Amino acid sequence: MIRLLLSAMMLVLLSLGFAWADDDLMRRAKAQFQPIPDTPPVLEGNPATPERVELGRMLYFDPRLSKSQLISCQTCHNVGLAGADLQEVSTGHGWQKGPRNSPTTFNAVFNVAQFWDGRAQDLAEQAKGPVQASVEMNNTPERVMETLGSMPGYVDAFKAAFPDDKESLSFDNMAKAIEVFEATLITPNAPFDQFLKGDANALSAVEKDGLRAFMGKGCASCHNGVNMGGLGYFPFGVVERPGVDILPEEDLGRYQVTNTAADKYVFRSPPLRNVAITQPYFHSGRVWSLRDAVAIMGSAQLGIQLSPEEADQITTFLATLTGEQPEVLHPVLPPTTEKTPKPSLD
Amino acid sequence: MIRLLLSAMMLVLLSLGFAWADDDLMRRAKAQFQPIPDTPPVLEGNPATPERVELGRMLYFDPRLSKSQLISCQTCHNVGLAGADLQEVSTGHGWQKGPRNSPTTFNAVFNVAQFWDGRAQDLAEQAKGPVQASVEMNNTPERVMETLGSMPGYVDAFKAAFPDDKESLSFDNMAKAIEVFEATLITPNAPFDQFLKGDANALSAVEKDGLRAFMGKGCASCHNGVNMGGLGYFPFGVVERPGVDILPEEDLGRYQVTNTAADKYVFRSPPLRNVAITQPYFHSGRVWSLRDAVAIMGSAQLGIQLSPEEADQITTFLATLTGEQPEVLHPVLPPTTEKTPKPSLD
Repeated sequence: MIRLLLSAMMLVLLSLGFAWADDDLMRRAKAQFQPIPDTPPVLEGNPATPERVELGRMLYFDPRLSKSQLISCQTCHNVGLAGADLQEVSTGHGWQKGPRNSPTTFNAVFNVAQFWDGRAQDLAEQAKGPVQASVEMNNTPERVMETLGSMPGYVDAFKAAFPDDKESLSFDNMAKAIEVFEATLITPNAPFDQFLKGDANALSAVEKDGLRAFMGKGCASCHNGVNMGGLGYFPFGVVERPGVDILPEEDLGRYQVTNTAADKYVFRSPPLRNVAITQPYFHSGRVWSLRDAVAIMGSAQLGIQLSPEEADQITTFLATLTGEQPEVLHPVLPPTTEKTPKPSLD
Repeated sequence: MIRLLLSAMMLVLLSLGFAWADDDLMRRAKAQFQPIPDTPPVLEGNPATPERVELGRMLYFDPRLSKSQLISCQTCHNVGLAGADLQEVSTGHGWQKGPRNSPTTFNAVFNVAQFWDGRAQDLAEQAKGPVQASVEMNNTPERVMETLGSMPGYVDAFKAAFPDDKESLSFDNMAKAIEVFEATLITPNAPFDQFLKGDANALSAVEKDGLRAFMGKGCASCHNGVNMGGLGYFPFGVVERPGVDILPEEDLGRYQVTNTAADKYVFRSPPLRNVAITQPYFHSGRVWSLRDAVAIMGSAQLGIQLSPEEADQITTFLATLTGEQPEVLHPVLPPTTEKTPKPSLD
């Protein structure tokens, strides 16, 4: 009888112990991470009026922003595929391979800057890049404006979206409209968000072990904040540079932006939101398995060999960052007119 | 006073005369054309359960049906661009140009058969073509099944869509699901549909003149029924074969299906629904102006030179065939898994 009582008391103490550990885990997690908000953040100087979001949605899906009229934002940032394209690197005009893996547009509004090397300060600046890149949409601002200006549906939509602008139809406003639409592509209510909001049962025991390892081993040093990353720049290979199969020699990363020797092979730490469904990984897109990517991060960035169990736990935890995917109505696009420039595949 | 009375009486008689002419026009139009129904037609042997339509929607938008995982049905049949791609001919795997202009999927369920040469008897048979065509998606049924079978989200969706099938996940069922989804892509309530339903004011005077010319000149011989075409096969150049700039010599049309000499340069008459927003025209896609296409049809098919006024009127009438475009929710697609075949650009 006494043995039974002791066992019962031990059970109570043990579960209290776990509860304390869980409380502590949640407290520590809340100090480093924040949940994805339920509504899009307000963008300074770019109010998300319904008309502006609607215009942005049209532009995001319109392949006529590209010279071929075949490639849209959606091509490489598919709203049905977690805002990415599930390709090693993106394919653009002329079936050319681009230099890097397509970063997701989902939750991208929470990044400190855009592109793997942070060369665009916000989503509006970002949006102008692929439109003009020869390996992506291969277009020019002049031709884009001629195209959009040839369709009364767009002329009216720009007026409605930018009623205070004398020249509402402009390349800058195109980018701003895409930015406000992209800011709506957020994925709240992932299990980890529910945990951060106080629901201790939102994560399983293994997922909590994974979170403990994620914080304890140092992953959270670079992957923190709302987006679990996307906030700072770090060399790929802080401790040990991976092989050229994963880190191709020719891509010098942020060095190409700053021209500073210390920025060679430096990249913005990728956000880990929805990481379990946005394979392949790294700027090179050379690694398809999330578990492999976790192990490589251990050795390259932290100089440690994660045990198979730790790698499993962290991988399991990362799947709790998969949030509710936005449901996007495909826009009905303004019809092409006789004034619209013709598509060109050259 | 008497002059005034006479004038008033003449006005009444004139308007009665117009009304009779209009009544007659509507009666004759109703004998040759039918409105697009408000709800999708029932497909024999392929019931449109919500689960089956939903699966079809996923498949229609999923680029992982292609070998490159870059090309989906939506690429060439964009639901935002009236179910077509606004390209001369479609571009597929490896940036290869296909042989013909992409026919719209909108209202395609009302065609007697699919493809320009009618080689597929229905939309399900059609759907299997581009998936395997080397210049389109360049995939194989085996690889498609391996791809879909690697994703639990698809395995479950096939089970839900085909609950009575022992093997719900099959290439045939993929095609059937796409067919039921495509059958939802209909565009009712065009001004001409409203006219056919009895609203004499749905067409303007010029549009009615265009309809009169359309029927009077003989256009309606090949372009009739619900879809204003799509019901029969006719040589391009019944009277006068157009130049090779419009009718390329190497594309023998239905001859390639039937191997019958009489079928050389024979094509299914294209449906004219939404024709004003699905440029460019003809199987070759070589003509961008609808008015030019109308004039070419006059000389090639009817052996007449339409007057500029007649061509204008018919062109104006054809714009009344633009119906309400379907609003399609972009699907959230099942995540790729480690078992999913990798995309291949080769």
